[in-house]
Amino acid sequence: MQHRTVGDLMTRGVIQVHRNASLKEIAVLLADNDVTAVPVVDDLRHPMGVVSEADLVVRIAERPDPAGPVVYAAPTRTDGTAGDDVTAEALMTAPAECARPEWTVVEAARAMESAGVKRLPVVDEAGRLVGIVSRGDLLRVFLRRDGALREEISRDLLVRTLGLAPTSLTVEVADGRVTLKGRVDSTELVPVIERLCLGVDGVVSVDTEIVSRSGEPVDEGIG
Amino acid sequence: MQHRTVGDLMTRGVIQVHRNASLKEIAVLLADNDVTAVPVVDDLRHPMGVVSEADLVVRIAERPDPAGPVVYAAPTRTDGTAGDDVTAEALMTAPAECARPEWTVVEAARAMESAGVKRLPVVDEAGRLVGIVSRGDLLRVFLRRDGALREEISRDLLVRTLGLAPTSLTVEVADGRVTLKGRVDSTELVPVIERLCLGVDGVVSVDTEIVSRSGEPVDEGIG
Repeated sequence: MQHRTVGDLMTRGVIQVHRNASLKEIAVLLADNDVTAVPVVDDLRHPMGVVSEADLVVRIAERPDPAGPVVYAAPTRTDGTAGDDVTAEALMTAPAECARPEWTVVEAARAMESAGVKRLPVVDEAGRLVGIVSRGDLLRVFLRRDGALREEISRDLLVRTLGLAPTSLTVEVADGRVTLKGRVDSTELVPVIERLCLGVDGVVSVDTEIVSRSGEPVDEGIG
Repeated sequence: MQHRTVGDLMTRGVIQVHRNASLKEIAVLLADNDVTAVPVVDDLRHPMGVVSEADLVVRIAERPDPAGPVVYAAPTRTDGTAGDDVTAEALMTAPAECARPEWTVVEAARAMESAGVKRLPVVDEAGRLVGIVSRGDLLRVFLRRDGALREEISRDLLVRTLGLAPTSLTVEVADGRVTLKGRVDSTELVPVIERLCLGVDGVVSVDTEIVSRSGEPVDEGIG
């Protein structure tokens, strides 16, 4: 259950533009949806690239404009020759580095880093756009609720992975800080339990008040 | 060693502006250093807030300008009344939500989320600015080199946490994908080892070719 997948974290129903969309259409779309970039798709919804505010600003800045300053708001007041004849395909940064829903956070972070981008369109097995995942989305892996952390630690770690009896340890989680109390067969298990808990995405710290059941029969656990 | 700290990931020698810096000075600083925001500090280098490109654009857009379009480049061609009389302190978003170097990635991500910001100034115990940490910096926790992953798994996990002999398992890491080969006392250890490895920041996947040494004497391990 660790290192949740891109499919868990991505934004679905993603804003997108067709390859033929105009600069003005893109500018309005970005503003209306309060996003800084959108994927550009072809007729089959295959991502071709990504067009961002930065791409728009660069293109506007490139225009010869003897009147003086660079005009940021130009797309909304074109003079008939500029803006509307430039398509998303000409503006976008391409090709689009894409992620798959089954990728882990680690794989997506590596892809962003190697491509030098802050977001990745997510495509299904047919290469069609199904979502978009940003740096901020990936960081949400650290923001899991206490209940989810407690559930994963109790069920997946202690019972399933370590084979402990469900009643052997109590798990409390508050603001990502985990406290474990109870008894286990061997004190050598304690650092293993701590380390396993620290490896759960969203755990801030682990405190243990675990004592060993030395002398009692060893009837459970990984020993 | 897991969930590296803010101190490991932050940018040191951070660009900053004094509370009295002008809009023009800030604009030039952002452009020259290719950053989108900087902390604003007082005379003692205590962060008071953060001023971003967005703060500048909003302020520029607020100005009455009968000549027409919003002028993005205004700070570099002020008319004598606008821009230079506005200070960083008036422009910034405050107060500054700050992080400490010893915070984990999880704590920093939680603080960014709750404050709704994309970066945090980092302060020492005296509250002085010592760095800045961004979303991108936090994601670098997933981008560790294969050698570092191999070292952490071999030394910290297998030997120190699990108490295995250094020669019992070989650890190979390629592009974050871990392969473990060798023998352990009990097959029940295998899911524990897999889970511990998956909890190491930067690990993409874990394959095990581990066989049990059943019948042989149990002279090591956590059992």
